[in-house]
Amino acid sequence: MSFITLTTDFGADSPYVAAMKASILAINPAATIVDITHSIPPQDVRQGAVVLQQFTSRFPAGTIHVAVVDPGVGSDRAILYAEFGDQRYIAPDNGLLSGLARHSAPGRMHALRNAAYWMPDVSATFHGRDIMAPAAAHLSLAVDPEELGPAQTEWMRLPWQEVHVVPGKIEGAIQSIDSFGNLVTDITADMLAAAPKDDSVRILCDDHETFGIWGTYADQPPMTLIALIGSSGFLELSIVNDSAEMMLGVKPGVGISVTW
Amino acid sequence: MSFITLTTDFGADSPYVAAMKASILAINPAATIVDITHSIPPQDVRQGAVVLQQFTSRFPAGTIHVAVVDPGVGSDRAILYAEFGDQRYIAPDNGLLSGLARHSAPGRMHALRNAAYWMPDVSATFHGRDIMAPAAAHLSLAVDPEELGPAQTEWMRLPWQEVHVVPGKIEGAIQSIDSFGNLVTDITADMLAAAPKDDSVRILCDDHETFGIWGTYADQPPMTLIALIGSSGFLELSIVNDSAEMMLGVKPGVGISVTW
Amino acid sequence: MSFITLTTDFGADSPYVAAMKASILAINPAATIVDITHSIPPQDVRQGAVVLQQFTSRFPAGTIHVAVVDPGVGSDRAILYAEFGDQRYIAPDNGLLSGLARHSAPGRMHALRNAAYWMPDVSATFHGRDIMAPAAAHLSLAVDPEELGPAQTEWMRLPWQEVHVVPGKIEGAIQSIDSFGNLVTDITADMLAAAPKDDSVRILCDDHETFGIWGTYADQPPMTLIALIGSSGFLELSIVNDSAEMMLGVKPGVGISVTW
Repeated sequence: MSFITLTTDFGADSPYVAAMKASILAINPAATIVDITHSIPPQDVRQGAVVLQQFTSRFPAGTIHVAVVDPGVGSDRAILYAEFGDQRYIAPDNGLLSGLARHSAPGRMHALRNAAYWMPDVSATFHGRDIMAPAAAHLSLAVDPEELGPAQTEWMRLPWQEVHVVPGKIEGAIQSIDSFGNLVTDITADMLAAAPKDDSVRILCDDHETFGIWGTYADQPPMTLIALIGSSGFLELSIVNDSAEMMLGVKPGVGISVTW
Repeated sequence: MSFITLTTDFGADSPYVAAMKASILAINPAATIVDITHSIPPQDVRQGAVVLQQFTSRFPAGTIHVAVVDPGVGSDRAILYAEFGDQRYIAPDNGLLSGLARHSAPGRMHALRNAAYWMPDVSATFHGRDIMAPAAAHLSLAVDPEELGPAQTEWMRLPWQEVHVVPGKIEGAIQSIDSFGNLVTDITADMLAAAPKDDSVRILCDDHETFGIWGTYADQPPMTLIALIGSSGFLELSIVNDSAEMMLGVKPGVGISVTW
Repeated sequence: MSFITLTTDFGADSPYVAAMKASILAINPAATIVDITHSIPPQDVRQGAVVLQQFTSRFPAGTIHVAVVDPGVGSDRAILYAEFGDQRYIAPDNGLLSGLARHSAPGRMHALRNAAYWMPDVSATFHGRDIMAPAAAHLSLAVDPEELGPAQTEWMRLPWQEVHVVPGKIEGAIQSIDSFGNLVTDITADMLAAAPKDDSVRILCDDHETFGIWGTYADQPPMTLIALIGSSGFLELSIVNDSAEMMLGVKPGVGISVTW
């Protein structure tokens, strides 16, 4: 079985996504293609990097994740093949892979330079369709990654603000906001292992505060601001049965502190 | 062939949907997954129940429909497996299945309590990914439903307002509004069998009225308010080539009467 | 392998799309279904025709493209099977196929009149589910198109404004706007072959002008209005890293001229 996922900023339901699928299926008619999301804000490489980091690790081993948030398409930026854990990735080298690289070192990495694995006729404006999708399809047919181009050891890093962890205090930031308006931070459950399991823990975001880290939304009444460990393993701020994004008016990048 | 459908309130194009697909494909790589919709309004169990009732019955026999509108995730609400007609369902026991149950009695029903068919590591906030998707994948591999947990005979019912049918009069309500703005009611074609086939039939919704039940949209000029039997077999109010939702300003739950 | 694509005005994430997939999979459980887009504006046959023309030609040969933008559903408009190049199409005969027909003559064409390839019970309002999807599924199982109904030689044409090409001047129009806000015209790369490859070429749209035809977005600084040949082979107006649609405030149908 050959799994290929797609993550882009093309917009939900964009026909450009279908164009990538046509490229894949023309090469590997048996590929199973899964959309992760196409609603990355246009050119927002950072949000693309966050989604790759949060949502790709649980796919079957060997799944090929193609990510296209590519304002530099047609310039001399490289396109990379990289392995993180047991997953495989293809993306422009513009920082898209650097969210994954915060949490684990890449394994094999190659630059996609071998045109034998591209569409015969490559446009200057749509490398997702003409280079990345075909390369993914060939990989899914068991082509060796080193066929795609020369080994590479460097990749572009976005300036990620590191989480500060000191005894009694953790300072992080909101990384992403989900479709329910939950605020997902970059603070992991591991970082919180030393925190007491009671309401002596204070979580502060902007000037909104809440106490204690709960198990799930239903632990508190509707409309309560709560903190919990979300399903991707990161600390999350949530308004029970409502949107914390709307109610708190905060955006990705806003700081959050946990103290005890 | 193993068909699994997904109906959620995660929002169109949400990566949480991909997370459920990863769970399914990790267990059954050959499953065919179909999205019904992910645009159920957040936590709107009633609209989820309506969609399940309207859109699942025509899938191939044995299709497994997974529905996740789950404000009580992580609480002690049960998760159910249930059969209606020749279709199979997995959903939290919060009323999601009660739209189906209005029209036919469930067949076999089991509570999902056997953790052998879940992800090894179940989060408190995403049972769609960690319990329901894996259980569906195992079922699609021919696991017997009784393996999933103990038989169950009760399920949560939402308070559905029943349609009143008396000679010369039917009183129902708008159940859902489709993407064209058509107003779909809970009045079935069967209930209307006794109504005359001419414009002596009066349909009243709020203070908007129309006469006669037409065959299709093209039977009347653009911008006309008409009533017809929609493709799911329910009476529908429509503005030809425009949106009845916008023009009439009504919402699900608003009453509708048919008199003759 | 059997590929079927869907292009409709049902709205992104509409359960009506799932209803069509249920029809297909009930007949051909092994069909691979690809969504092109469901975001054609309601009843906008012209935009549907543009999308079919721009996004279907690169699918594997023999792919069956089903298009449903069908305000005349249930009237006496025909439903057509038609071949363009190595692709196959099923659509109502309301102009949806006439974008394809601007660029190449149709091959075989048949009217879908043989009810043996429809759902047993055809609604008056959803021929996408009850006629077009089943016919596509049967075709994907190698049914001969002539089984679907009588040969046809005529089809409805929309009034397409032709591109005017004279020495030193081309006059066309904006055909569609993509999800990045790029303005895609009906002027092809071929028509521009005679234009000089420098900034003596002037492109004028409404009262916005730009000079020269560039290779890709990254060739100019952010916020610059540029012209280039887009990935479908048509001249495109773009604001680098922003939305030309928003910044210029123009719509499909607005004229564009290229002079040198």
